[in-house]
Amino acid sequence: MIRIAAVLVDRANYGRMKPVLKILDEDKDVDLKIIATGTMLLDRFGMAVEVVKRDGFNVSDEIYIELEGSVPSTMAKSIGLSIIELSNVYQRLNPEFVLIIGDRSEALGAAIAAVYQNFCLIHIQGGEITGSIDESARHAITKLAHYHFPSTYKSYKNILQMGEKKSSVFFSGCPSADVVRIARKSMKIPDLNGGVGTNIDFNQDFLLVLYHPVTTEYFSAEKSMIELLEALKKVNMQTILIWPNIDAGSDGVSQAIRRFREFNPDLKLRAFKNFEPEDFIPLLDNAKCLVGNSSSFIRDASFLGTPVVLVGSRQDGRERAPAVTQVVEDRFLIANAIEHQMRHGKYPESELYGKPGVSDKIASIIKNLEKVQQKKFVVSK
Amino acid sequence: MIRIAAVLVDRANYGRMKPVLKILDEDKDVDLKIIATGTMLLDRFGMAVEVVKRDGFNVSDEIYIELEGSVPSTMAKSIGLSIIELSNVYQRLNPEFVLIIGDRSEALGAAIAAVYQNFCLIHIQGGEITGSIDESARHAITKLAHYHFPSTYKSYKNILQMGEKKSSVFFSGCPSADVVRIARKSMKIPDLNGGVGTNIDFNQDFLLVLYHPVTTEYFSAEKSMIELLEALKKVNMQTILIWPNIDAGSDGVSQAIRRFREFNPDLKLRAFKNFEPEDFIPLLDNAKCLVGNSSSFIRDASFLGTPVVLVGSRQDGRERAPAVTQVVEDRFLIANAIEHQMRHGKYPESELYGKPGVSDKIASIIKNLEKVQQKKFVVSK
Amino acid sequence: MIRIAAVLVDRANYGRMKPVLKILDEDKDVDLKIIATGTMLLDRFGMAVEVVKRDGFNVSDEIYIELEGSVPSTMAKSIGLSIIELSNVYQRLNPEFVLIIGDRSEALGAAIAAVYQNFCLIHIQGGEITGSIDESARHAITKLAHYHFPSTYKSYKNILQMGEKKSSVFFSGCPSADVVRIARKSMKIPDLNGGVGTNIDFNQDFLLVLYHPVTTEYFSAEKSMIELLEALKKVNMQTILIWPNIDAGSDGVSQAIRRFREFNPDLKLRAFKNFEPEDFIPLLDNAKCLVGNSSSFIRDASFLGTPVVLVGSRQDGRERAPAVTQVVEDRFLIANAIEHQMRHGKYPESELYGKPGVSDKIASIIKNLEKVQQKKFVVSK
Amino acid sequence: MIRIAAVLVDRANYGRMKPVLKILDEDKDVDLKIIATGTMLLDRFGMAVEVVKRDGFNVSDEIYIELEGSVPSTMAKSIGLSIIELSNVYQRLNPEFVLIIGDRSEALGAAIAAVYQNFCLIHIQGGEITGSIDESARHAITKLAHYHFPSTYKSYKNILQMGEKKSSVFFSGCPSADVVRIARKSMKIPDLNGGVGTNIDFNQDFLLVLYHPVTTEYFSAEKSMIELLEALKKVNMQTILIWPNIDAGSDGVSQAIRRFREFNPDLKLRAFKNFEPEDFIPLLDNAKCLVGNSSSFIRDASFLGTPVVLVGSRQDGRERAPAVTQVVEDRFLIANAIEHQMRHGKYPESELYGKPGVSDKIASIIKNLEKVQQKKFVVSK
Repeated sequence: MIRIAAVLVDRANYGRMKPVLKILDEDKDVDLKIIATGTMLLDRFGMAVEVVKRDGFNVSDEIYIELEGSVPSTMAKSIGLSIIELSNVYQRLNPEFVLIIGDRSEALGAAIAAVYQNFCLIHIQGGEITGSIDESARHAITKLAHYHFPSTYKSYKNILQMGEKKSSVFFSGCPSADVVRIARKSMKIPDLNGGVGTNIDFNQDFLLVLYHPVTTEYFSAEKSMIELLEALKKVNMQTILIWPNIDAGSDGVSQAIRRFREFNPDLKLRAFKNFEPEDFIPLLDNAKCLVGNSSSFIRDASFLGTPVVLVGSRQDGRERAPAVTQVVEDRFLIANAIEHQMRHGKYPESELYGKPGVSDKIASIIKNLEKVQQKKFVVSK
Repeated sequence: MIRIAAVLVDRANYGRMKPVLKILDEDKDVDLKIIATGTMLLDRFGMAVEVVKRDGFNVSDEIYIELEGSVPSTMAKSIGLSIIELSNVYQRLNPEFVLIIGDRSEALGAAIAAVYQNFCLIHIQGGEITGSIDESARHAITKLAHYHFPSTYKSYKNILQMGEKKSSVFFSGCPSADVVRIARKSMKIPDLNGGVGTNIDFNQDFLLVLYHPVTTEYFSAEKSMIELLEALKKVNMQTILIWPNIDAGSDGVSQAIRRFREFNPDLKLRAFKNFEPEDFIPLLDNAKCLVGNSSSFIRDASFLGTPVVLVGSRQDGRERAPAVTQVVEDRFLIANAIEHQMRHGKYPESELYGKPGVSDKIASIIKNLEKVQQKKFVVSK
Repeated sequence: MIRIAAVLVDRANYGRMKPVLKILDEDKDVDLKIIATGTMLLDRFGMAVEVVKRDGFNVSDEIYIELEGSVPSTMAKSIGLSIIELSNVYQRLNPEFVLIIGDRSEALGAAIAAVYQNFCLIHIQGGEITGSIDESARHAITKLAHYHFPSTYKSYKNILQMGEKKSSVFFSGCPSADVVRIARKSMKIPDLNGGVGTNIDFNQDFLLVLYHPVTTEYFSAEKSMIELLEALKKVNMQTILIWPNIDAGSDGVSQAIRRFREFNPDLKLRAFKNFEPEDFIPLLDNAKCLVGNSSSFIRDASFLGTPVVLVGSRQDGRERAPAVTQVVEDRFLIANAIEHQMRHGKYPESELYGKPGVSDKIASIIKNLEKVQQKKFVVSK
Repeated sequence: MIRIAAVLVDRANYGRMKPVLKILDEDKDVDLKIIATGTMLLDRFGMAVEVVKRDGFNVSDEIYIELEGSVPSTMAKSIGLSIIELSNVYQRLNPEFVLIIGDRSEALGAAIAAVYQNFCLIHIQGGEITGSIDESARHAITKLAHYHFPSTYKSYKNILQMGEKKSSVFFSGCPSADVVRIARKSMKIPDLNGGVGTNIDFNQDFLLVLYHPVTTEYFSAEKSMIELLEALKKVNMQTILIWPNIDAGSDGVSQAIRRFREFNPDLKLRAFKNFEPEDFIPLLDNAKCLVGNSSSFIRDASFLGTPVVLVGSRQDGRERAPAVTQVVEDRFLIANAIEHQMRHGKYPESELYGKPGVSDKIASIIKNLEKVQQKKFVVSK
């Protein structure tokens, strides 16, 4: 019986980890503890923890850590709180392994609390290259983690380059491959009751928009979002928009959206806090074009071939399928790119981020890991 | 005028940074802010902040963050506190650069608070390889820092391997080269009033002992220290001992020392909390042998050629001069190694960790750094 | 020269303290430091700290402490953070006196950080009786504070009853008396650009609504707000609404408002985050009726005679002028009470909470206080 | 089945609560959760949590919160941490009642975390009058607590005076009455293995010394302790000494003790971190005289009649039996007072702090309490 503590810090974390967690939870040899923290618990982000519970998981701890303000110091302080509070939780649960995914600030906190207490740390989605502070956090987590499950071959190589031992790195692909496969089967039309704004007619074309602030440019987040919204006005199509994450600059992005709606009441836009994975994948699949800088547009959408207009620097360096076109934050360029992508239509589906079966692979490897405490840098020849 | 915030978290930090800080502080184009935190402020560790002030520096902030307990969770929580509180300090001081050194847990906290607030981070002593959790923290700091000043050529290469941009890494050597050069000139006999225990006669031979707990083996810290003390008893020589740092296991090491003194009142041992750099270097120089696992025995002593008996795994992988002999925590092996080293006497002085002039080099490069915010992983060819 | 650190934790704090702070700030013998924390710094609450700066004050420290979630544990944790962070601020500023007002959770944190560091604590607005957790916090602050400036005679007597020394309690009245006097003179029409919703025509009658959650009933906060909104729908009048404070239950109240607007787009309602004191007083004065449970309806409005419909238990026990009618959270009772109050029109102005000149009195007493550290309970005969 | 969370913050807390906890723990209708925090977990204070476990209790949570430094800001910050961390614990345990005792800073934190989360708070030992910051903390806790169990009639009256409802205050006496009764029965000779220093011969007379810093005079703590130690030197008797608590000034007191021992190796003094209640009571009973300012000398010793020399202001105002003689911190006055008390010998036993049976009384009332959330100030006629 191995005890594994999985820490979920936001909706995307859960969306991608879900199939892995399902397999571990159903395994009699595994005692899975799920810790929900970060924006998982916040109404403003759709209380993703409730989805976890509805999906049949037990949540052992719910830890509020997010400071309000969306400035750099609140982001930093929330990391501090995550370390303090998760230290207690780990100490009490005493797991053999701590399992985290991604590159959020809160995941960095979860990693530090684990390794300074000698808990063996497993990290999914390391080694990728992007912009924003996530780029630094991701690699710092890699240097703290004991085991790694990268999503792409390049990220696998990057982790090895950073001095991790070959036997600790497993090139698995991203579990979102399974999420997409499962959600595509059901292909239900998402329930749109949750949002605010105009109604969406699913027999008509629609766009899906998700734009997060870039922490190192947080002061210009509002301006950038206005450019994106002006582009939408030009394109003048039904739009489903998801509110941004909690990073520094988030208030500016949200402010831009609210003001824009106030002054453009005729915009055919409906805004949502969150979607369950099963609702989100069909949206990604059926949208005419995805606009913004969410990693889901690069990663999850790659399995589907939906055209993407990637706006700004946030995903700079991340590997991408041909469906992705990148533009800077300029209303004309964004509008042009959307129209170009609409004309093009669907691209071929890509296996850049893995093939179905990833989750089974990850879960079965995890079950057989040896618990290590202190690793050491491996010098390349 | 550039504002630089230097964060000092323990006595060794200050001992090595001092010549660099002196140069920056005397420079009219630099507004140096010194932040003292961690064990710098604690009586139990000799209140090193008072030394900083006596040396003529202004200390802008004194931030208490150390939780008592010396278990893994207190170590982790102190990192959390350091992030929360340094976030405020940086926000108020608004420096162009944050300057840190080494691999302490508190330095990792100082790094996170800096980069998540978009302050440009400079790190001294990255890229080295050792044991203990410091090994992980050091490399995680490297992946967060924007500029690097490694001490050895191998550590310079390791930083590049980890994907740092070549133009951001400066092979400078360790500023302790200057500390040793300066302290050696004066060559004063240290004032021994501060310690407790028997008197030391400096006309006779003496040992210098400093043994820190290894965090990943913190439960056996007391047992290991007892082995070392039993070895001292066998060797039966005048001994100057310094209390261990605050890491998990520290209480066990201290306990061992106190009990041992209680039951061995005839031991010629005097225990100190701390030494000023000017007192410490002559001790390193004049001791017949250095016993323990302090990084100063590997690094600072390398300039002096004093024989070292390195005990246990804490420095595993760290580059070392021929003067260092390593043994496991066993009383007989330690005693034998001490006797061997005593017979051998001084070794040649080494330039492994740099030549005098390091501090000038570091200070003048820092003054001309460009402020960057977001760096990106560099893939090796 | 005496150094006084004034801690402001929300918009109402500043609204009432402003004239006292103005006098102290202009006094050459006083070195006034203003610390802004709590919701003063949050966009969602109108960033009141910007008003402070526009009014010509220097703000020495801006300390983010509010955890997002608006559940009981986030409220409690924010107190914890306020203590940790204000401890640093006080330690650095080293004031002779710390000055706080009111009964917010963050003020309790500010009080604890002061007295445990031996700073002499002055408290304005102690001794009043109300509902909600503020009732407990207010009296706990009284038992920590060294000097007291109650607003009413009854609260003055209550403070003495609690065992405070007679010479430490000054029956001054509430400085809002001066705020109202000054704001009434200018009588400007408030700028409504900030809000969202329908436009307000100031030549027509309007209501002013402000309803905060009651922490001990936070789970029913949404339901209570719906009753209030349904009553507004019945009354069908132009309404200016202010979003609730951050207490546990706040998300429920805000949720109710947003949903109600969504489903009742014809409601003549405009919602604001915040008003400057100079804008708020004219609104209080010219509204046909004030509806909700804000203490400003009891306290500040008492000087003006505007009719009030007080909804629910939050102000239970607080002294009130005849203009206040209380009802439970029921749409019919609230609607009836509003209509009754509209028919009645203005009531006589009251001096229950003091006469103009309060702020001068408080400031001149503060300047002559002796610094005490440890007080002692006074047993009544 | 009622769930009660009892929070223990130091050795004295446990010493006095133990019989109440034993009764509640053995009751089938009660689900008792014991939370150990504060100095209960620290080696330096004898790890009292281990005693709790040896006594057969389950400890549900061990929460490290004490910051090292023993200055005012560390004391304040530890309160902040206690609130943050206990908020999580209460949220998870979801007790009907939270039970605390005494006036420690950490107990104030435990109280705030409870009432802001709407947990019903029971407080033992409120209403007493003393010096030090404990005086303020104790009364602030009373204004937060929903139910009160004062130890003396005067403290019962004081709680009522502060505006607490008569039906919420139960004049029970102090449970230490039962501790003394039980421990006296066994009357075992304490095991002195734990301490350091000279051996104690229990067939000879001995003194028992315990002196805590006074927080509002923490800068002079070392000087005061030296006076006490010089008095001991004059008296020249076997002495059992207990290290001070963790309050600001604690390092100074400890420093004085260590230095004094260093320079006076012939002093017949043995220093201990802690005693179990069963060992401590016989010491209190058999000592020729108790010297210092511990509340146990006033409270627990009152049942025994042992002469006390109370040093300094820390217990100013606390009710005391005739066995207590108070002097200021002066070596001559202390020495004289000790000699006077030695000549006098035992005083009559006192019932000032209650009669045996207190614990049963408290436990049976607790079992029948109604859960209230918001209380209200009661105005005296």
